[in-house]
Amino acid sequence: MVNAMAKKNATVVATRTLINEQEEYQEKLLNVNYNEKLQEMIKFALEFDVPIMQTEGIAFLIMLLKVKKPLRILEIGSAIGFSSSMMALNSEAKIDTIERDPKMIAECKKNHTELNLLERINLIEGDALDTLEIVKDNKYDLIFIDAAKAQYIKFFEMYSPLLNDNGVILSDNLYFHDLLFTEVNNRDLRQLVRKVGKYNDFLLNHPDFETHIFKIGDGIGVSTRK
Amino acid sequence: MVNAMAKKNATVVATRTLINEQEEYQEKLLNVNYNEKLQEMIKFALEFDVPIMQTEGIAFLIMLLKVKKPLRILEIGSAIGFSSSMMALNSEAKIDTIERDPKMIAECKKNHTELNLLERINLIEGDALDTLEIVKDNKYDLIFIDAAKAQYIKFFEMYSPLLNDNGVILSDNLYFHDLLFTEVNNRDLRQLVRKVGKYNDFLLNHPDFETHIFKIGDGIGVSTRK
Repeated sequence: MVNAMAKKNATVVATRTLINEQEEYQEKLLNVNYNEKLQEMIKFALEFDVPIMQTEGIAFLIMLLKVKKPLRILEIGSAIGFSSSMMALNSEAKIDTIERDPKMIAECKKNHTELNLLERINLIEGDALDTLEIVKDNKYDLIFIDAAKAQYIKFFEMYSPLLNDNGVILSDNLYFHDLLFTEVNNRDLRQLVRKVGKYNDFLLNHPDFETHIFKIGDGIGVSTRK
Repeated sequence: MVNAMAKKNATVVATRTLINEQEEYQEKLLNVNYNEKLQEMIKFALEFDVPIMQTEGIAFLIMLLKVKKPLRILEIGSAIGFSSSMMALNSEAKIDTIERDPKMIAECKKNHTELNLLERINLIEGDALDTLEIVKDNKYDLIFIDAAKAQYIKFFEMYSPLLNDNGVILSDNLYFHDLLFTEVNNRDLRQLVRKVGKYNDFLLNHPDFETHIFKIGDGIGVSTRK
């Protein structure tokens, strides 16, 4: 009996090791490098439960920057400035990024300053529902929507007219932690899940944009003009 | 006992249904449409065991075409002409595609003809190791390597000089059916698995190209000039 259990435990350990090895290799293939400051930001995000993009999503974002080479980027939802920093460090673009939460704004400013990115990244303080006026004369090659899920359709409708003809709109969290397929007890969360589902349908049925949504990170949609 | 088993079976069925629903939804999000002829090609590939790209990989390819808008594409490995047809139908590019297998060549020609794509797709008959001379004066915006795994490094070295400065090289099957993490008994297959691993390392350590490899389809690498 003890032997059987030991054997079973050994198998479990071996399987876990294999899964870890696979995950490590998968991470290596994504080929994303974080400098010391970025690693610090990741730790901060974990500690204070700030949702930031995982490495798979970041790799996808960097790949698109390398393929598309955008010169102007608009980001809706800066949080602590992690993805805007990664975008600035992996492109030559000038970035406008919008954030409404004062605590996030303070953290984001600090991070952009320490990474020496203030000349490349312009932080716009306010709710993205109210900031169209500030950026309305700009044209963007890439618009990245990564903010309050409940407003995704509004954000898309408000800001997509600012996209250049050959531009790309990215939307993050379209798999919403796989909650689309889970029974959700919390009422607010259930509503949010429904909103994400609606946004996906909105994208897939949009008359002017073609969208493909990938199981990358938490689900990333790539929209281009038809 | 019978009740317990019935209950367990019901749970298994419910779980399977949920997984099917998830897979169907995931497929819907990829947003790939196949016309009647393309569906026929998929059936043919299944029946005669010809490896063609799955929908997830095709969606990724289409997304990149929409973002990048290439005008000239080189494909190494036409097989039955499925991916070259999808590329032609989802871009305005002129496509050169190389195939050495006479049976595949015949099928590929038939398919391109029936899809009315002969003016857009140029099928080059021969081993890609010998066909550089034919295309050496062209410049490509996209090079897609989807052929004999054992030669991937050679193909990359031979054809990457034909890439435009802002071009993209795609490599397919870099996860190689997850065999990189499986004990493989067959000696030839084991060697092939090792070759794929070596190609991944070659890409990640290339001095002139930056590559990110994603768990999309059977593993797709996206390489751009540094």
